[in-house]
Amino acid sequence: MYKIMTRHQAKMVLSLQKKKVREESSLFVIEGDKVVREYMLAGNRVILLAAKPEWLDGEPETVTGMADEIVTVSYDDLRRISSLKTPHNVLAVAAMKTTDFSAEILADGLTIALEYVQDPGNMGTIIRIAAWFGIKNIICSADCVDVYNPKVIQATMGAFLHVRVYYVSLDKVLKNAQEAKMPVYGATIDGKSIYDCKLNSHGIILLGNESKGISDGLLQHVTDRITIPGPEKPLAGIESLNVSMAAAIICSEFARRKTV
Amino acid sequence: MYKIMTRHQAKMVLSLQKKKVREESSLFVIEGDKVVREYMLAGNRVILLAAKPEWLDGEPETVTGMADEIVTVSYDDLRRISSLKTPHNVLAVAAMKTTDFSAEILADGLTIALEYVQDPGNMGTIIRIAAWFGIKNIICSADCVDVYNPKVIQATMGAFLHVRVYYVSLDKVLKNAQEAKMPVYGATIDGKSIYDCKLNSHGIILLGNESKGISDGLLQHVTDRITIPGPEKPLAGIESLNVSMAAAIICSEFARRKTV
Repeated sequence: MYKIMTRHQAKMVLSLQKKKVREESSLFVIEGDKVVREYMLAGNRVILLAAKPEWLDGEPETVTGMADEIVTVSYDDLRRISSLKTPHNVLAVAAMKTTDFSAEILADGLTIALEYVQDPGNMGTIIRIAAWFGIKNIICSADCVDVYNPKVIQATMGAFLHVRVYYVSLDKVLKNAQEAKMPVYGATIDGKSIYDCKLNSHGIILLGNESKGISDGLLQHVTDRITIPGPEKPLAGIESLNVSMAAAIICSEFARRKTV
Repeated sequence: MYKIMTRHQAKMVLSLQKKKVREESSLFVIEGDKVVREYMLAGNRVILLAAKPEWLDGEPETVTGMADEIVTVSYDDLRRISSLKTPHNVLAVAAMKTTDFSAEILADGLTIALEYVQDPGNMGTIIRIAAWFGIKNIICSADCVDVYNPKVIQATMGAFLHVRVYYVSLDKVLKNAQEAKMPVYGATIDGKSIYDCKLNSHGIILLGNESKGISDGLLQHVTDRITIPGPEKPLAGIESLNVSMAAAIICSEFARRKTV
């Protein structure tokens, strides 16, 4: 009933693992059974849906009807074109939806700012956390991992549908925010315990690179250094929390202040 | 100077991706530059260290001296024997250190209990969170992912050195805890907001499977259902937080009660 994926299509999917190709084509890959399904159920079209035949059998028309083209793939095909070591049952190619950054979005409650976050899993997880806590906007330095990296999309588990990610000059945006008297909370290892800080319901939460933290340049614009207290005596191998765990705890702490 | 990894050694490392082989041999694989280094710096011997020559050049005797045997590998070799799609520069094989569970460990502050947690990344992250918040013991149902799975070890980033993981009959342990009037906090989606709950500094924090949550059987032993409040209107694709993010937030909430 469905055609088998062509060599040409396989090559196209694989090429979209490269950021340059994604930028030129404005296309990206969505992996993961649940994510692909949610994406289409939310009313988004995909240009190509490549799935194992048994996956297609189980999907309603509300899902499959959102694909311009549907092809079937074997597990080996999927393994070849997937960015995951253990691929799921389906993969889709879709057109990017980009929105230009405007400083007005900063007026909308809390915004997360990410500097040089490199790991796709971390980026995806942070998007998921933002969605959970109702944070609608994430601003990223240009050297952060691309949000359309297939591993990021997969890690968001569908949350990328609810959060806008902008690539901006963080230096400029944070400087403006600081001048506008907006609080800029920077997650550092030498700040005040987040449990004791005054936390506003409006402001920017800045998180830095996985190993280097926040750069000196951006630290200048931080108005409040916040820290998640850890072990009393430092333990080998755990000098800090992973950036996405820190994001979860910090966002939760902001959320609790609104309710308690 | 160092020998090249033999075929036999490569086969041995690869075979340790199988739980059965790990159990029979009592050996496990440690991946990740930092984790391997921390493991040896903490005074633990490894039976085999397989590394790229340039990695070995940079390491002090305090690290390399802890290996019974050192061999060099190419990137392609590593890719072949690694459990990661993008391997690091080094990999080590070490002997397991197992401790039998005793109910006495439950007397030591907070304990995390995991039911059927399947994802190695989640398990590793939860171990790292436990270490950060000074939780020394994790008890797991027998069907949780094996803590010696190379992906778990890698995800702990060295924290597995500071936390003991026991595989137990959770039903029995939680039943006994409940009878001993110990609070058993279960993370569910229909509990009381964690921000409003009374949280003890002594008890068990129970987290369930990635998609199914806590089973009905174990819910019987839960004394307090706790929930991390999410979006007011449900959002497609984010019905719940990932289990490791929930662990981070819950542990942080317990920690803050001690300090604030």
